Amino acid sequence: MSQHPRDSNRPEADPFTERTPRVVAARHLTRRQGRDKAGRFLVEGAQAVREALAWQGGEVHELFVTATAAERNTALLQSASERGIRISEVTDKAAESLSETVTPQGIVAVCDAVPRSLESALQGTPRLVAVLHGVSDPGNAGTVTRVADAAGADAVIFAGDTVDPHNGKCVRASTGSLFHLPIARSRDADEVFAACRQAGLRLVAADGYAKQDLVEASANGDLAQPTAWVFGSEAHGLPDDVVAKLDTSLRVPLYGAAESLNLATAAAVCLYASARDQRN
Amino acid sequence: MSQHPRDSNRPEADPFTERTPRVVAARHLTRRQGRDKAGRFLVEGAQAVREALAWQGGEVHELFVTATAAERNTALLQSASERGIRISEVTDKAAESLSETVTPQGIVAVCDAVPRSLESALQGTPRLVAVLHGVSDPGNAGTVTRVADAAGADAVIFAGDTVDPHNGKCVRASTGSLFHLPIARSRDADEVFAACRQAGLRLVAADGYAKQDLVEASANGDLAQPTAWVFGSEAHGLPDDVVAKLDTSLRVPLYGAAESLNLATAAAVCLYASARDQRN
Repeated sequence: MSQHPRDSNRPEADPFTERTPRVVAARHLTRRQGRDKAGRFLVEGAQAVREALAWQGGEVHELFVTATAAERNTALLQSASERGIRISEVTDKAAESLSETVTPQGIVAVCDAVPRSLESALQGTPRLVAVLHGVSDPGNAGTVTRVADAAGADAVIFAGDTVDPHNGKCVRASTGSLFHLPIARSRDADEVFAACRQAGLRLVAADGYAKQDLVEASANGDLAQPTAWVFGSEAHGLPDDVVAKLDTSLRVPLYGAAESLNLATAAAVCLYASARDQRN
Repeated sequence: MSQHPRDSNRPEADPFTERTPRVVAARHLTRRQGRDKAGRFLVEGAQAVREALAWQGGEVHELFVTATAAERNTALLQSASERGIRISEVTDKAAESLSETVTPQGIVAVCDAVPRSLESALQGTPRLVAVLHGVSDPGNAGTVTRVADAAGADAVIFAGDTVDPHNGKCVRASTGSLFHLPIARSRDADEVFAACRQAGLRLVAADGYAKQDLVEASANGDLAQPTAWVFGSEAHGLPDDVVAKLDTSLRVPLYGAAESLNLATAAAVCLYASARDQRN
């Protein structure tokens, strides 16, 4: 390999290929089973890797980077290298094999899984929490996490059959928010609801069929209470038996002819309505 | 072709293939140039076709349907047939050639283009309008149209280099809302801004860098004014020279560590904030 005097972080060995054992091991993390087993996941792209490095909740274990991406991200690699994080140059094809995007960005970090226990995510006196129940689209789950972060939520909980927060599309859609606020997950939605109640949160179903709307709840002062918003799947919403377990249901008012909002935009309106009333 | 006694709408000739001239002609409508030339576009899926049939702003000219989809949508085809709309059975492959979705739904309508003139879209005394400026992602444009409809907006305007509202992904993301409220478009953004001012609307840039946020504007009573919200591209927001032409700029407050919201969720928060204050 030729010398690159202007880049002292550039690894000097031959770049790893998609058959190099460490790349093969990392590739297992592109699948949920592999992530669950290792307790680690892949974070792709310079911005996301930067967020992972700044994260207090866990560690970045290693970085894979193509020659081109290394030249573009010298400061980032410098700071990773100073922290003793192993950096390996990989071929374009190896980077592709670790990527879930159409246009691989050439820089991928292996990072600790983000979820903590429910108790830890809900510690203190949380005021605003987003619970995803049965959300199967990873882009939606990531976007709601980003919105929850923006609205100042204290935690996001992935409940029931919701997608893995480490799914590449979810990570990308969250644009770093997975690292900004506590994330928890549990297959057992009842356990999630119990933990939220234990933390003093009112469980509110976001439900297009609810009798009361957000504006009415706001006028009653209900939105100012500590609230865990529970959001269901884009396709089916929340099952009736789940809605029945919660403290109340609210809908976003529909003033025009639209029959509904999509999950992320509905969540944005709900979470910001609570944030506003809680801060007034 | 065999008889289907329970479906009197079922065409009796051989199904059209992807090489049948009428299918070839319709396929031109999968491209913007073809749509602009014909002044027509394609609407796919039973729900969207139902909305197109109910639409007062233009006509459905013909329907292409696979045998399977015809069996699933007898009532819909009955009502189209009663209105004299030409219905042609097509092969699965022909339906695929007219589809922009991964899983073609087997029912496609040829429909008049939706945009009307700026003057017509803004007639009367509009209170809430969404203007898209340089929005290139069709899914985002369609989702914002759906949100604008839900928030009771009076019109949506596709300005400057914004994607074609008839793009298949935009139509799908709008889930019928393209047919619910007046749509206009103009490459000339200055013409759009002038028409909005002429209609008595205050032009407000949704801008992450704005000094004032939504909550402050609401407290001042500004959001209760007749407003045209102007939204820029997801990647770059609104150019400075466009922001400078508008009456004011507002940002969605970010209470957590997120650096921004995506276009559709930001638009949802802005449009609902105005809708709420205008109805209070």
